[in-house]
Amino acid sequence: MNVKILLKLVLVGSCLAWPPVQRPAYSGSQEVQPAPNGIKMPKNYRDWRIIATSHRLDNNTLRIIYGNDTAIEAARAGHTNPWPDGTIIAKTVWKDATLPAWEKAVVPGEFVHVEFMVKDAARWASTGGWGFARWKGRDRQPYGKDASFVQECFACHTPMKDNDYVFTHPVSLP
Amino acid sequence: MNVKILLKLVLVGSCLAWPPVQRPAYSGSQEVQPAPNGIKMPKNYRDWRIIATSHRLDNNTLRIIYGNDTAIEAARAGHTNPWPDGTIIAKTVWKDATLPAWEKAVVPGEFVHVEFMVKDAARWASTGGWGFARWKGRDRQPYGKDASFVQECFACHTPMKDNDYVFTHPVSLP
Repeated sequence: MNVKILLKLVLVGSCLAWPPVQRPAYSGSQEVQPAPNGIKMPKNYRDWRIIATSHRLDNNTLRIIYGNDTAIEAARAGHTNPWPDGTIIAKTVWKDATLPAWEKAVVPGEFVHVEFMVKDAARWASTGGWGFARWKGRDRQPYGKDASFVQECFACHTPMKDNDYVFTHPVSLP
Repeated sequence: MNVKILLKLVLVGSCLAWPPVQRPAYSGSQEVQPAPNGIKMPKNYRDWRIIATSHRLDNNTLRIIYGNDTAIEAARAGHTNPWPDGTIIAKTVWKDATLPAWEKAVVPGEFVHVEFMVKDAARWASTGGWGFARWKGRDRQPYGKDASFVQECFACHTPMKDNDYVFTHPVSLP
């Protein structure tokens, strides 16, 4: 084979293969104990993109809602009723706090928990197509004694049935 | 030169050079008018990662604060006093709203504006090393009649001088 052609082939081939493809989701953490229903904490959720925020006045907590690539694509396309299989929505919850230098604002204080809704219509058919999981506190203890904990999650989300069981309305960032 | 060595050099070289390095910031939007001080709206800010949220009770707005890669790396490493050159912090602001199905929570309503703090200690030396910019409304109109608008921004941020003029304390996501 002509050396020039060989060089070109190697160059193109190596460029196509490198760097390794970044998979959008679901790399489960090995460090944190799985939820009682088998859901693993997604490893890379800290890097997910924004879906919304909320401030609950009944229990004085601030929340950021964010999602994996499937969730973000669905949110931006308006395909959220239902959300597609593969969607993972994350919600991180903090107690209300105030900064001494800025008393007019409520800001995130003590970390409460991080929780996830994982869409897999077949696997989680009995709970609206969603798998639920929550890890409490900075030591990320799984919520729930056994897999039946999801009944509590699902009961709370049932009033949102017409919105595919999701409270959050994604924001649009102009 | 030996062909094998040549091949290796080409392979290594092409991998290092491809894909083109993703610069952490600053791809300015061509569609939106720049701020009066010349700052362009960062094109890709919708994809930036989370720094914090806040709820201002004095003007009833919810906010998400997020940042470019330089900002996120600095926040996670605790290198935020001062934030490094190249940092861009974004804040998106919405009016308070309530969902009919979830009255106990305040959620993002009407979009108000998106604003940015751009760290360049030399360029913006007269305003604490920060360039300020804001775009109002869904049509993203630049805020300020001329470049002097930044005096208003800087005056508001001056009480936070000991925190590098930044109100936000980054959250840590366990």
